[in-house]
Amino acid sequence: MRRNDLNIALLAGGVGGARAARAIAAGIRPENLTVIANVGDDEEIYGLHISPDIDSIVYTLAGLEGPAGWGRKGDTFEAMDALTELGVDSTFRLGDRDLALNLHRTLRLREGEMLSTVTASIAKELGIETVILPATNDRVPTMVEIESGEISFQDYFVLRQAQPDIKALRFSGAEQASPAPGVRAAIESSDIVVIAPSNPPLSIWPILAIGGMAESLEAAETVVAISPLVGGKPVKGPTDRVMTNLGFEVSHAGVAACYEGLLSPMIVDANPPEADPPAGLEAIVADTMMNTPETGTAFGEWFATLW
Amino acid sequence: MRRNDLNIALLAGGVGGARAARAIAAGIRPENLTVIANVGDDEEIYGLHISPDIDSIVYTLAGLEGPAGWGRKGDTFEAMDALTELGVDSTFRLGDRDLALNLHRTLRLREGEMLSTVTASIAKELGIETVILPATNDRVPTMVEIESGEISFQDYFVLRQAQPDIKALRFSGAEQASPAPGVRAAIESSDIVVIAPSNPPLSIWPILAIGGMAESLEAAETVVAISPLVGGKPVKGPTDRVMTNLGFEVSHAGVAACYEGLLSPMIVDANPPEADPPAGLEAIVADTMMNTPETGTAFGEWFATLW
Repeated sequence: MRRNDLNIALLAGGVGGARAARAIAAGIRPENLTVIANVGDDEEIYGLHISPDIDSIVYTLAGLEGPAGWGRKGDTFEAMDALTELGVDSTFRLGDRDLALNLHRTLRLREGEMLSTVTASIAKELGIETVILPATNDRVPTMVEIESGEISFQDYFVLRQAQPDIKALRFSGAEQASPAPGVRAAIESSDIVVIAPSNPPLSIWPILAIGGMAESLEAAETVVAISPLVGGKPVKGPTDRVMTNLGFEVSHAGVAACYEGLLSPMIVDANPPEADPPAGLEAIVADTMMNTPETGTAFGEWFATLW
Repeated sequence: MRRNDLNIALLAGGVGGARAARAIAAGIRPENLTVIANVGDDEEIYGLHISPDIDSIVYTLAGLEGPAGWGRKGDTFEAMDALTELGVDSTFRLGDRDLALNLHRTLRLREGEMLSTVTASIAKELGIETVILPATNDRVPTMVEIESGEISFQDYFVLRQAQPDIKALRFSGAEQASPAPGVRAAIESSDIVVIAPSNPPLSIWPILAIGGMAESLEAAETVVAISPLVGGKPVKGPTDRVMTNLGFEVSHAGVAACYEGLLSPMIVDANPPEADPPAGLEAIVADTMMNTPETGTAFGEWFATLW
């Protein structure tokens, strides 16, 4: 059963964000969901403007996502093999079909279009009804400080496979950046703002750091976070290590602390059922696994009945 | 038998140019051949700098060429299919591996490298010993005037499949352009300059139109053209139609007229054996088919014994 009357804005990044978008879109009218995507991971690779978080959301909502949650299902890697043959470091693997999307986006951006316009057009071509907005059209690259100095996000995440300890994060240009057209309106006019079960520091903080975003969230009626921890661990990715590095407890309370002052209720997984509910914050216990379309639909339909 | 002491500069464009490069490289030491490639066909497509003639030469010399003489053997077209899915007109088909080469070139050009440097590096990575030089590092797009107005070369050649009648050709920017580093030296210091059996107006004229090229060719001791006509017709492509459109007879004499004043001897095919040898020009009769590596080697070895 869908709730046709509910409007939701979702702050999302990474695979957790894409899966939450799919889940929530299954519980309401898809076009009543606006996904506000992290663009701190965006980078120039092979001369292409890559937007990994937007693309995970696009591919997942189009049913085209790769098995690991990024890239395209069944994609081939002929172009990467050819780059290797030409002596190019192709550690950052883009499938051939994925490459085409990146090429198309890059060309349109070079022609002067905004990232939000290009994203909307790609989503439309792929039959997606949910609104997908980059958090900003400006460049706000997340810079990761590790022992040896500051590196780019993709250097940290892909080339070094998220192995180095993080000493600090810098959301370069974020304060001066403006939310993309429609972002503030979606946050301020939705019935609920949801923070996806993404990596809080890596995927959500870069969104929150954008100029004016904090004010918009304060104006929102209800902001609810879905904790990315299940059984005390992240479903996917280095969330636990990153949180520990940055001085947060790996717990629902630690997640809540990452969003200090923002949340009304919080959704926490039933496993373990009563592990550290965040102090002073209503915790709604649920089965938060949404890694498949089926578990996602179950979560989304349940979630929509809460409000 | 190779002639180890002979240095040749080859003016080349199109598939005929690539096959002539392979043939002649088989008759001498490959590194003693300098191929000077037409770049009038270069264009920006999908935001990529394509250099079709350079790439035909590169792929053919690396033994990677597609069956029609362009693109890569066994290449896949996943990226093109994905572009189509995104609503992009992908009539200009670039295979996935070919796309990677174009992406690599484009990035390096954007970073400020010269086309000649990038080309040399690509050739080296693919194990090519022959020197491949773009005729110029400048932009000299061939513009094609047809009934409806002036269009780009790729619009004429690929999108309209070389069907429209040509009223005139314009080698935009050619006069102001400079030959790429090494081009003049190769022409002036080689024992022979060969004009490949390419389309004279479309593939060779854009090279000849570059500033200083005429002077270099006048300084060359021997300039020999291989006629692209076999049995009175071009082996491949619209050479006959283009020559007719521009007022040239489709004959060896017509080809010689396209290079008026430049040639010493001319190589003409034995089929038909005595068809219209160009007036006042020594015609050396041979089997000029070089469409396979085997026929190419036969031609190249014979050719090298001539001098």
